[in-house]
Amino acid sequence: MRTILVTGFESFGKDSVNPTVKMVEELPDEYAGYSIRKLILPVSFERAPEEAMDALRGLKPSAVVSFGLAGGRKGITVERIAVNCKDARMADNDGAEPEDEPVRADGPAAYFSTLPIKKIVAALEEERLEASVSNSAGTFVCNCLMYSLLDSIAAEGRPVPCGFVHVPYLDSMGHPEAPSMDEESVRRAGETVIRTVAQYLSER
Amino acid sequence: MRTILVTGFESFGKDSVNPTVKMVEELPDEYAGYSIRKLILPVSFERAPEEAMDALRGLKPSAVVSFGLAGGRKGITVERIAVNCKDARMADNDGAEPEDEPVRADGPAAYFSTLPIKKIVAALEEERLEASVSNSAGTFVCNCLMYSLLDSIAAEGRPVPCGFVHVPYLDSMGHPEAPSMDEESVRRAGETVIRTVAQYLSER
Amino acid sequence: MRTILVTGFESFGKDSVNPTVKMVEELPDEYAGYSIRKLILPVSFERAPEEAMDALRGLKPSAVVSFGLAGGRKGITVERIAVNCKDARMADNDGAEPEDEPVRADGPAAYFSTLPIKKIVAALEEERLEASVSNSAGTFVCNCLMYSLLDSIAAEGRPVPCGFVHVPYLDSMGHPEAPSMDEESVRRAGETVIRTVAQYLSER
Amino acid sequence: MRTILVTGFESFGKDSVNPTVKMVEELPDEYAGYSIRKLILPVSFERAPEEAMDALRGLKPSAVVSFGLAGGRKGITVERIAVNCKDARMADNDGAEPEDEPVRADGPAAYFSTLPIKKIVAALEEERLEASVSNSAGTFVCNCLMYSLLDSIAAEGRPVPCGFVHVPYLDSMGHPEAPSMDEESVRRAGETVIRTVAQYLSER
Repeated sequence: MRTILVTGFESFGKDSVNPTVKMVEELPDEYAGYSIRKLILPVSFERAPEEAMDALRGLKPSAVVSFGLAGGRKGITVERIAVNCKDARMADNDGAEPEDEPVRADGPAAYFSTLPIKKIVAALEEERLEASVSNSAGTFVCNCLMYSLLDSIAAEGRPVPCGFVHVPYLDSMGHPEAPSMDEESVRRAGETVIRTVAQYLSER
Repeated sequence: MRTILVTGFESFGKDSVNPTVKMVEELPDEYAGYSIRKLILPVSFERAPEEAMDALRGLKPSAVVSFGLAGGRKGITVERIAVNCKDARMADNDGAEPEDEPVRADGPAAYFSTLPIKKIVAALEEERLEASVSNSAGTFVCNCLMYSLLDSIAAEGRPVPCGFVHVPYLDSMGHPEAPSMDEESVRRAGETVIRTVAQYLSER
Repeated sequence: MRTILVTGFESFGKDSVNPTVKMVEELPDEYAGYSIRKLILPVSFERAPEEAMDALRGLKPSAVVSFGLAGGRKGITVERIAVNCKDARMADNDGAEPEDEPVRADGPAAYFSTLPIKKIVAALEEERLEASVSNSAGTFVCNCLMYSLLDSIAAEGRPVPCGFVHVPYLDSMGHPEAPSMDEESVRRAGETVIRTVAQYLSER
Repeated sequence: MRTILVTGFESFGKDSVNPTVKMVEELPDEYAGYSIRKLILPVSFERAPEEAMDALRGLKPSAVVSFGLAGGRKGITVERIAVNCKDARMADNDGAEPEDEPVRADGPAAYFSTLPIKKIVAALEEERLEASVSNSAGTFVCNCLMYSLLDSIAAEGRPVPCGFVHVPYLDSMGHPEAPSMDEESVRRAGETVIRTVAQYLSER
C-alpha cells in the first residue's frame, strides 16, 4: 500500500503543548488508498532531520508532509521554500543554538516545496479556514527539517512531493494577545492538507 | 516614605514563565526616594483586580505601574487606555472565560492611562529599547486589571498616576516565529519605566 | 421609508484610491425595506464628523455604518470601541495634525460600537471573507468620526445602532509587502455588513 | 576610484512617493574613498534587473546595495535571501503580473545576500533605528532585482558584496494604521548602511 509520511513536533520551550501532536495523531490511518504514517519529531536541529530521514528511507513514502507550530502567525501558512541556514535566537531541546550555519555545508541555498502549495491554500479557504502561502519557514528547526527532507529527496532522485505547513497557536494555549485558532479548526486543517495531497498524488 | 506600587503577573496557560515576574522582582526596593512595592498577581479576572486593589488601599501609593506579557507583540508597548470589557478566547487560571461582559456593570466605557505614556516611550527609545504606545490592552486579564485600578483610583478621587505596560516574549521562551526580547533588555525596560514615573512624580 | 446611513472616506495622503469609495457607491440604493444613503467624507478631523453629523440630523437614519481604510491590516476588522483621542503621526487632508487632543473636550473616554459586531464578523466569515473584531480604531480620523457619531447619538437619546468597519488595502493598490484583498471581496464585505445590520434592525 | 552602486525604486501603484528615491539621492557622492553611484529603478520585473545589471557591467562596483519600500513592515529590514520566484498579486508598472514563474528559468532556488547583514542591523540599532534581519524579500520586483543581481555576480565570478534593504512607510505617506518612520530616520538609515558596507569592504 502506498504511504504518506506525516510529521509533527513535540512541545518546545515553555509551551507544554504543540498543537501538531494531536493534529497528526488524529489523522485517519488510511485515506483514499494511502496509508498515513505518523511521526512526532523532537525539536532538535540534529535529531528531527535524522529521524525523519530514517522514516523516509524505511517507508519510501509517496509524499511527505511536515507540520509545525508558528506561534504569532495568523491562520495556516503553507511554506514555499526552505533555506540552507540555521540561525537560532534560542536553544533547541538539545541545547543547540546554531548561529548562521548551513543545514548542509555544501548544499544549495534553498529548495522549493514540491507540494501543491496554492492548491492546499485554496482547499483550506474552501473549508473556511484562514490560510496563505508563506515565503519563509524561518531559520529554526522547522526550516531545517524541511530543507533536510527536500535535500534527501533530491539526492535520491525519486520525485516525492514534500513540504511544510505551519499552524498557529491554539486558543487554549494561553496567548491572549496573539492570533490563535480553535482545536477543531486545526484538526480540520490537517485533514484538508492530507486530502489535497492525496488528490494531487492520484492525479499525477 | 512615598511608595510606587508595581505589579507583574504569574505565568499563564502553557507558558511556564511570565517575564514580568523576574523583571518586577529584580527592580530595586527603593528608587529616588520612593519605596518600590512589588506584587505578583494571578492571571484571574476576579483575583488580580482584588489583590491589586487591596494593595492600593493598604499602601496608598503615589503611583501604580502594572506589567504584563503580550506574546506576539514587538517591543515594549505602553498602553493608552483600558476598556470596560472582558472578552476572553481562553479560560483564565481560575477557569473563567467571560464573553463580552463589562469589567464593572455600570462603569464608564474606558479610562485613559494617567502615566506619562509618551515620556515613557521616549525614555525607552533613549535606552535603545524598542517601544511604542499601544491603543489597546486587549480584553483579557491585563485590560481588566488596568481598568479596575483606574476605576478605583477615580472613585477615590486621589490623583494617583496609574497605567499598564506590556512586554514581549523573552528569547528564551521558545517562540521562534514570534518577536522576542532578551532578558537583560526586559530588565532595563522595567527600570526605565520606573525611573521615568519617579521623575514624573517628582516634577509634579 | 427607513434609512441606513453608510459613509466611506475620500482618498488620503499618497494613496490616490480609497477602497471604501467604490465599495460604498456600489451598495444597492435600497435593501430589505431600507433606503441606503451614501456619503463619502473628507479625511479631515474637522469636516468628516461635521458632514456626517449633518446627515445624521437631516436623515434621522435607523442605523449608521462607517467604513474606512486600515492599510496594513489583514482582513475586515469590525471596530469595538472609539476613544476620545486625536493623536496623528501625519497631517489630515486639511493639514491638521493634532497630538493627544480629545475629540470632545468634556466627552467620555470612549464609546462602544452599538452595531452587532460579533454577528457581523460571523456573517463575513460565513461568506469566506477574513474578518475579526478590532479593539482599536486608532487615533486618526476614522476613530474621530466613530467617536463623534456615537457621541451625537448618545446626546440625542435615540437608540440608533452605529459603528465602524475597517477594510484592508486592495490588491490593486500596489503594496506588495502588506496584506491586501481583491476588489470583489471588499464589495461583498460591504454588502454583507449592510445585510447583517438590516437584519439586526428588523429583529429588534 | 572604487565605487559602490546604490539603487532605489521609483514610486509604484497608488503611492506617489517611494522613500528610497530621496534617501538614495541624498547620500553623499563620495564616502570613505568610495564613489557612491546612484540609480533609481522602475518597478518593473523586466526593466529593473536590466538597468541594474547594465550599471553593474559598466561600473564594475566594489559592492551593490539596493533599497526598496516594504509598506506594512516595522523598521528597517535587511534581507537575508533572494528566491527564484516571481509571484505577483498586482501588476508592476509595465502591467506585468507573473504568477509562480522563475526569475531565471534554470537558476538556483535562491541566493544569500553577500552583504554583512548582521553587522548592518547592529549598526542601525547603534544609531537607535529599529532594524532586523528579514528572511524573505517577498516575490515581487524587489526580490526579483536582488536575485538577478546576485545571479549576475555569481556568473561573473568576481566577489562583489551585494544585497537588499527594505525601508518602511514614511510618516508623511498617509498610512495611519500601518507602522511608519520619519524621513530623517530613513535618511540616517541609508547613510548607516552605506557606512557599514564601506567599512566591511575596507576590512576585507
